[in-house]
Amino acid sequence: MHHAVDFIQDLAVIMLLAGIVTVIFNRFRQPVVLGYIVAGVIIGSYTPPFSLIHDEKTISILAELGVVFLMFSLGLEFSLRKLARVGVTAVVAALTEIILMLWIGFEIGRFFEWKLMDSLFLGAMLAISSTTIIVKALDELGLKREKFAQLIFGVLIVEDILAIGMIALLSGIAITGSVDTSEATFTLGKLLLFMVVSLVVGILLVPRAIAYVAKFKSSEMLLVTVLGLCFGFCLLVIKLGYSVALGAFLIGAIIAEARQLHMIERLVAPLRDMFSAIFFVTIGFLLDPNVIISYLGPIAIITVAVVIGKIVSCSVGSFLSGQDGRTSMRVGMGLSQIGEFSFIIAALGLSLKVTSDFLYPVAVAVSVITTLLTPYLIRGADPFTQWLGRMMPGRVSYVLTQYTKWLQSIHLSGDSAALMAVVRRILLNVAVNLAIVVAIFLGGAFFFKQFAKLMSPWILAVAAQSTVVWGGALLLSLPFLVAVYRKLKSLSLLLVELSVPSNLAGRYTLHVRRVVAEILPIAAMVGVMLLLAVLSASILPSTEMLLLTGIAAVCLAVVLRSWFVKMHAKLQIALKETLEQQNDIQNGGHS
Amino acid sequence: MHHAVDFIQDLAVIMLLAGIVTVIFNRFRQPVVLGYIVAGVIIGSYTPPFSLIHDEKTISILAELGVVFLMFSLGLEFSLRKLARVGVTAVVAALTEIILMLWIGFEIGRFFEWKLMDSLFLGAMLAISSTTIIVKALDELGLKREKFAQLIFGVLIVEDILAIGMIALLSGIAITGSVDTSEATFTLGKLLLFMVVSLVVGILLVPRAIAYVAKFKSSEMLLVTVLGLCFGFCLLVIKLGYSVALGAFLIGAIIAEARQLHMIERLVAPLRDMFSAIFFVTIGFLLDPNVIISYLGPIAIITVAVVIGKIVSCSVGSFLSGQDGRTSMRVGMGLSQIGEFSFIIAALGLSLKVTSDFLYPVAVAVSVITTLLTPYLIRGADPFTQWLGRMMPGRVSYVLTQYTKWLQSIHLSGDSAALMAVVRRILLNVAVNLAIVVAIFLGGAFFFKQFAKLMSPWILAVAAQSTVVWGGALLLSLPFLVAVYRKLKSLSLLLVELSVPSNLAGRYTLHVRRVVAEILPIAAMVGVMLLLAVLSASILPSTEMLLLTGIAAVCLAVVLRSWFVKMHAKLQIALKETLEQQNDIQNGGHS
Repeated sequence: MHHAVDFIQDLAVIMLLAGIVTVIFNRFRQPVVLGYIVAGVIIGSYTPPFSLIHDEKTISILAELGVVFLMFSLGLEFSLRKLARVGVTAVVAALTEIILMLWIGFEIGRFFEWKLMDSLFLGAMLAISSTTIIVKALDELGLKREKFAQLIFGVLIVEDILAIGMIALLSGIAITGSVDTSEATFTLGKLLLFMVVSLVVGILLVPRAIAYVAKFKSSEMLLVTVLGLCFGFCLLVIKLGYSVALGAFLIGAIIAEARQLHMIERLVAPLRDMFSAIFFVTIGFLLDPNVIISYLGPIAIITVAVVIGKIVSCSVGSFLSGQDGRTSMRVGMGLSQIGEFSFIIAALGLSLKVTSDFLYPVAVAVSVITTLLTPYLIRGADPFTQWLGRMMPGRVSYVLTQYTKWLQSIHLSGDSAALMAVVRRILLNVAVNLAIVVAIFLGGAFFFKQFAKLMSPWILAVAAQSTVVWGGALLLSLPFLVAVYRKLKSLSLLLVELSVPSNLAGRYTLHVRRVVAEILPIAAMVGVMLLLAVLSASILPSTEMLLLTGIAAVCLAVVLRSWFVKMHAKLQIALKETLEQQNDIQNGGHS
Repeated sequence: MHHAVDFIQDLAVIMLLAGIVTVIFNRFRQPVVLGYIVAGVIIGSYTPPFSLIHDEKTISILAELGVVFLMFSLGLEFSLRKLARVGVTAVVAALTEIILMLWIGFEIGRFFEWKLMDSLFLGAMLAISSTTIIVKALDELGLKREKFAQLIFGVLIVEDILAIGMIALLSGIAITGSVDTSEATFTLGKLLLFMVVSLVVGILLVPRAIAYVAKFKSSEMLLVTVLGLCFGFCLLVIKLGYSVALGAFLIGAIIAEARQLHMIERLVAPLRDMFSAIFFVTIGFLLDPNVIISYLGPIAIITVAVVIGKIVSCSVGSFLSGQDGRTSMRVGMGLSQIGEFSFIIAALGLSLKVTSDFLYPVAVAVSVITTLLTPYLIRGADPFTQWLGRMMPGRVSYVLTQYTKWLQSIHLSGDSAALMAVVRRILLNVAVNLAIVVAIFLGGAFFFKQFAKLMSPWILAVAAQSTVVWGGALLLSLPFLVAVYRKLKSLSLLLVELSVPSNLAGRYTLHVRRVVAEILPIAAMVGVMLLLAVLSASILPSTEMLLLTGIAAVCLAVVLRSWFVKMHAKLQIALKETLEQQNDIQNGGHS
């Protein structure tokens, strides 16, 4: 009972102060997030006269829930369609920004002779801009619907995905203690695989489950179901060794495909607001003024680096991908701050015990300063562009204008564009199917011990057990392998028709074409099987058994071919329907 | 980090199971609450194979938040206006039910030779019916808009208020260890005083603060402000020694007067649903099947007592207050179960360490059985009434019908009704003003030490300090005292006119009337001042100082009379406006 009193006192202090400070901040048109951090500094243990918080452990757990709900909401707003619309610019600008900022951050850390891990985490902290702060700033300036704002949102989505990967990578590096590129590639590969498979399986299952629950017309049941899915998936992700932030984002992106998205967003928003307020306030707790005073130099240098580095990298990235100078500059100036992701990454470093204590307050200080600058930078973008235009030598600006014009002129059109689209669709299809197959085999290897235990009453020999598991994985994969084979065949037919012109092989043209079109997919399938063998090495049966299983599988595939095709088509249609259904509803909801 | 993982695992297990079980329960048309409890039993440590919960402390804190949000939502739905509409019946039925069930529960406890405290808490647990279960049941049966349903809601509101008092009383009894009636009366009086003062002050301040924040049009800020007010007030209530449930209910009732009520209800609902789910699931944790098996006898007897006792007491109560037989029986049968309040009271007993461990699972078991019976009882009310009508001797049913007719015939009407309304309004006004005055003096006595410390640099003598504090309290109270005096004077004028008929005193009539009308309020004011002197005994100055202060106050009151009246009128208008504003919006919202 007394413990609960402590806790309610903590919540009362946090919420009251957060409320008062945010009202003041809003009154002076500063972002709410800053208000929370200031409230945290006031409450925190570093500012006199005394700490107002009694039950720090429970509060820190609620702050963790804040990260879950922040990332979950971000996932709900995520959409592959939105991403496709701003496509190339977003990817180029985000990649330029992240690579440049990672490098700048790392170099600054090395310059101050910080530890390797500190420098690496500093780089990661500077790499990602703050979605919440930009959205709030653009909203307050009334620029949310402008073209450059759409580009900024695109860059932010790409950044979020890359940040998720970065969190996974940093965890891996922190645990193994070394920057092993092959290891990193493998980690990133596994991560991508996990993301693709959980998206596909999730989008097949979750919206259907939610639709079923929604039929009862009880927002309480819907909320509890959504929370169950959210925390359940987070738990799975944690058990697989990834961060809870990744899990919350992914399940959010999956649930975003449910027809009931708008209802769910409305139900989750208060939870996000309450817990994210606690999260941002606890960030303020950790702000030790003494640390800030003694690290004034680094903070100033990092702030300048963030502002200039982000403006340059994002503007150049946008410009290179074909935007005009003014839009590029506005994109760059909008993205020049760091925010919630930096805190998440800083908290990751602290919880993994690989970074020094000063890194967190430094990140918060830089974030506070750059956040304060954001609205002024956005407003200053146009005057700065004009000034830059006047200062630039005529020849340079002529070359730049020609570049933009040239890029816009080389867009594919007509037949070749349609062909590219077909090829792209086939390759995407093959990649998704292969990801599922790989996941099945990796899952078999991962859970082999559990399977073996289940089989032990009937099958004792380990060799026999591994044959059964491997064979089972192969059986499960068959529909997807058949689909991959068929898609590869149609792709090779297409390629062959283009690359073996009829005048080259003369009267053998048709013959040559058919042979190549048959050989190419079979060769690819052999490659796939070799890859699978490597990935499932730990449960690979003996050579004879493998041969037998393989032949049985091929026979089965040939015999049940049409059934497999039908089943796979059904799954594919279900997936497509879910994705397109959502589309309808969203358009309906906004119109 | 690892701790947060434990916690997320707990949340995942709770939410996933709660989601699945509630879907199943909803499928078979049973209340969601039962589903949560069953999910809790499955998760709980008493059911094999092992406990699925790792961080029981944090989960129990979140369950406590469930109580806060449940009571807060109840407060948001509470309305003095709604209560006035069903008035007499609700009060009579609720009082009959609570007194009878308290007695039955206590006697059952004594019969089984349980401890005195156990018996007392058992009585309290059986006294209150379950709002959530009744609302769900009536909703599912489609009877929510019937007349008896409105009566049931009225009874529930009165019960909720009395339950709040009961929680305070039980805490007091548990701490002092004795059932001291004068102590209990004093406690209840202090509680009533606290409730009235916080309602008046709260309704004056809180809706204005919320309206100010709402101007920023940010639902995030509104939510944080509301949560800050909620937890802040809960903290104050806890510090004053009352339960957090009372605090949450009161601040909810205050915030219910804000113009933004509907928005706030929408924002708080997901928080309530999430945390109350955790609360109900944790109830299931404590359900030890062994306890239930060994207490099968008491559970059966208590269940029968709850069903029959509540049907009889509520039906008789409704009937006595003038409802017809059929409606009375429907009210009684709807109210015959126990629910969330019983758990809150059981949890109170456990946390105060005055009740035995078996009481909680017994209460949960009885609640589960009576909840399951509720829909059948509601549906069975009409057939049962008909059967009862056939079985009743003709003369009895004739007498009963005549009683109903007689009661309905004696309703006041015309002039006397209007007069009663005026007198009632004046008395209410006096009571509220006096409550504020009493609160000011009690506050002065309570915080005397803090005030004394503040004054110590200038005034050292304790006698002088107490004179300043007492005088200050008197000064603050003056506007309210002046208002009380004026209201009492108009009341005595009214009464004198009625009770001193012109033919009695002949030509002295006017004179007698004026003297009586002057003396009565002055006598009453002297009584009030004596009461204040008793209440503030600890800070009462010496007799001379008291006399001086009193004379100064009277002079001030006479001189500044009109200013005080104006100020008081302003406050009163502000209060009235808030209450009526809300009325507009609510009607607007529902039409």
